[in-house]
Amino acid sequence: MFRSLLPRETSFFDFFERHARVTVDGARELLALASEDGPVEPHARRIKELEHETDVITHQCVEALHRTFITPIDRNDIHRLITRMDDVMDLIDAASDRIRLYELAPKRSEVREFAEILVRGTQLVEKAVHGLRDLKGDEAIKATCIEINRLENDGDALFRRALAGLFRDEKDPIMVIKWKEVFEELEAATDRCEDVANQVEGILIEHG
Amino acid sequence: MFRSLLPRETSFFDFFERHARVTVDGARELLALASEDGPVEPHARRIKELEHETDVITHQCVEALHRTFITPIDRNDIHRLITRMDDVMDLIDAASDRIRLYELAPKRSEVREFAEILVRGTQLVEKAVHGLRDLKGDEAIKATCIEINRLENDGDALFRRALAGLFRDEKDPIMVIKWKEVFEELEAATDRCEDVANQVEGILIEHG
Amino acid sequence: MFRSLLPRETSFFDFFERHARVTVDGARELLALASEDGPVEPHARRIKELEHETDVITHQCVEALHRTFITPIDRNDIHRLITRMDDVMDLIDAASDRIRLYELAPKRSEVREFAEILVRGTQLVEKAVHGLRDLKGDEAIKATCIEINRLENDGDALFRRALAGLFRDEKDPIMVIKWKEVFEELEAATDRCEDVANQVEGILIEHG
Repeated sequence: MFRSLLPRETSFFDFFERHARVTVDGARELLALASEDGPVEPHARRIKELEHETDVITHQCVEALHRTFITPIDRNDIHRLITRMDDVMDLIDAASDRIRLYELAPKRSEVREFAEILVRGTQLVEKAVHGLRDLKGDEAIKATCIEINRLENDGDALFRRALAGLFRDEKDPIMVIKWKEVFEELEAATDRCEDVANQVEGILIEHG
Repeated sequence: MFRSLLPRETSFFDFFERHARVTVDGARELLALASEDGPVEPHARRIKELEHETDVITHQCVEALHRTFITPIDRNDIHRLITRMDDVMDLIDAASDRIRLYELAPKRSEVREFAEILVRGTQLVEKAVHGLRDLKGDEAIKATCIEINRLENDGDALFRRALAGLFRDEKDPIMVIKWKEVFEELEAATDRCEDVANQVEGILIEHG
Repeated sequence: MFRSLLPRETSFFDFFERHARVTVDGARELLALASEDGPVEPHARRIKELEHETDVITHQCVEALHRTFITPIDRNDIHRLITRMDDVMDLIDAASDRIRLYELAPKRSEVREFAEILVRGTQLVEKAVHGLRDLKGDEAIKATCIEINRLENDGDALFRRALAGLFRDEKDPIMVIKWKEVFEELEAATDRCEDVANQVEGILIEHG
């Protein structure tokens, strides 16, 4: 219903969906990085490429906002949503970059668990922003947002467990510092998924 | 005056006040944890329960927002305010959880000082959101927000002092890492009180 | 065009510009601190004074918002912009304060590189908020915001390089913790410049 107000070429929903899809790819690549014994480098490079792709999509979306007179949802809400979505991918890239930079191998098992949460979380974000196309699907989007919130709680519990394990097993303070930073970035990525869900929820509340 | 616009059963001010009151209880429990020599566990468990309670209130508030057609203040402002309020309690819980997890005893004296700031800060937040019921009380709310801002400066100064003391007294890097994390979370909790004050101030500016 | 709506004495653009100018001075003082071999103390004290000045300007701006009926741009946007601007100066002060507190000497070379990015970034912020006076200059402000975004990428790359160098050269974990904190604050300051650019961009999107 809203899309009819928009010229075909600048559907903001397309930007959201493309961005969300690339971010799911990023989370999957992180899961591959965490699951395989091979070198980290190719995965980290691929994640960096995907992160660049989401940057370009974000930029195009903001450009389109500047050019578009009438938007399907509040202009500032579009701007905030795409900006928050971008944070998730940035943090996935930051975590993978640190694992590469610090040559952290073998990888602690919680990295894989975080990656699984992030694959699920980014898939839910994709579903939620797809839902925005038709705000009649209100209840389904709300349920998706609640599930993202639940995942963030899982991420928090995992973070605590990861820290406890780290301090128990690792006696080298330098290694503790390095791993702690990686876990902090992974936990922040799950937090940012929740921020996206909150932003989507805010849009629902305004327009639903 | 605004309340008359609302059906009795969904007063958003009730949600704000209930949330704020439980958060004050959380800060007081943290003060008990920091002041007593006994085991941390019962206090940390109680704080976790209170954190769950605020989660439920937040969820109910967002649910009510979805169901309510006319709101006393901007819908998005309500959503943002309750979300920011929730961050304070999350961080109090995170700090208490780390003290428990890392078995940090004896407790460094600055934990108690932080807890005192947080009791005061959450009480002021309670006062500020109560003030929103009647936006005529403009000047009083503003004064409360300014006091919260001042408390945040105290928190910042305390954080610097806590770090200086930590690096002076503690030679074990692992212990430095653990305590530094606790202090960072406590300082972030006082920061989030300021975010709530800013949000309240934004509402005043819009509706005052 | 918008200014004519405002009583002379409360031009919000004046607050933005004054705040931005003092923050540029803060970044320059940080560059001096990082470039000279002399004691850190006088520079850190000067930065603290400038940080206090921006606090006062922020407070005056919020006060004026409370008193002013009609504003040239959305009231909440003004509030958010000045609040975000304030974060940049807070973080410059936090970084300089830690260098002083931890007696970090000789200074690692990346501090100077960060300070150079921050001088450039705060100058761009000054230019962007000046541009808000005349929203017709749309294209120029947008270009400035894009340049600030690019600088943030530089800051991110520098942060990664700074961490890699730190873990390579520094074997004392306590020193790693201290320097890592300084670099995190400097990187956060460049992040906050980007937040200001995003906020300016949001205002353009709304009013441009």
